[in-house]
Amino acid sequence: MTFVNSEFLRDLKVFDIPTCLRVCAGTDGSVTFLLEIMTRKDVSVVTEAQHIVKADTEMSSLLKVPEGSDVNYRLVTLFAGDIPFVRALSLSPIERMPGNIRQDMMRADIPIGKILRNSGIETRRDFDNINITDDDPIFDISRVLSRSYHIVHDNNTMMWINERFPVDERWNL
Amino acid sequence: MTFVNSEFLRDLKVFDIPTCLRVCAGTDGSVTFLLEIMTRKDVSVVTEAQHIVKADTEMSSLLKVPEGSDVNYRLVTLFAGDIPFVRALSLSPIERMPGNIRQDMMRADIPIGKILRNSGIETRRDFDNINITDDDPIFDISRVLSRSYHIVHDNNTMMWINERFPVDERWNL
Repeated sequence: MTFVNSEFLRDLKVFDIPTCLRVCAGTDGSVTFLLEIMTRKDVSVVTEAQHIVKADTEMSSLLKVPEGSDVNYRLVTLFAGDIPFVRALSLSPIERMPGNIRQDMMRADIPIGKILRNSGIETRRDFDNINITDDDPIFDISRVLSRSYHIVHDNNTMMWINERFPVDERWNL
Repeated sequence: MTFVNSEFLRDLKVFDIPTCLRVCAGTDGSVTFLLEIMTRKDVSVVTEAQHIVKADTEMSSLLKVPEGSDVNYRLVTLFAGDIPFVRALSLSPIERMPGNIRQDMMRADIPIGKILRNSGIETRRDFDNINITDDDPIFDISRVLSRSYHIVHDNNTMMWINERFPVDERWNL
């Protein structure tokens, strides 16, 4: 079994982007935590959307849950100080959320890294893919690095996450 | 329960050190992986020592194993390209090593991050402490940042790790 997409690492190493962005986009640890260390500022979460949806065909395949299952959809922006650094979408099957983190996940405004950390839960992160696009801007920046990965617990996808990072000089930290 | 030492993060944020060093010293993910991303070079492990010891009082307390238990002692240097970046000591109770990683752990020359990743094992990392000293040089550098943490699996310490980083301009990446 391979849990790292070796293409993921290869792609990441060739991107001509600021080192701190490459690090955030490549870490298998908490992005929130890294942002806090890099910027030396407090990191806050602004929730753009959070609601429960029924798994469609695509989500069902991504999360390996039956179609129609309840899935928590959460779209947030991570700020360090007053600068936005990341737009993160997470999809979490309700039935797989351990009881002690369900409330925090639904309440939003707490970074996922912090929720997992406070719960003491054991996980691993499996990368899907990474790419840079020029046609789907965030924070008024047209060049965007996007990566996706699974947070795995008890050998099931507890959460699928897509993170999008603006590629500009804010990462020169 | 608190799994992050909030002092750990606070201490790390005030150190006046290169950002890439702060990131490596603060990550709750794999250091090898970050080094590879930061330097865009292959990371290699040179084993300085690797043998089985009997747990003394201090190890017994650190790892929560009976005194006299078999513990794998492993001291390695991580190189990116031909530059040494980290000296890492790990102590792992033999009885707690999952069967599928035992061989890799004893064989050495494979980074721990890669061993864990290839095994697909689920873990969390709990920080102990972090400090900077001037009296215990590595790689001919007298200013050294040292941090310690536990890799926890099945709610037991599978590994205790101390990493020491030279504080100098090699981290200006």
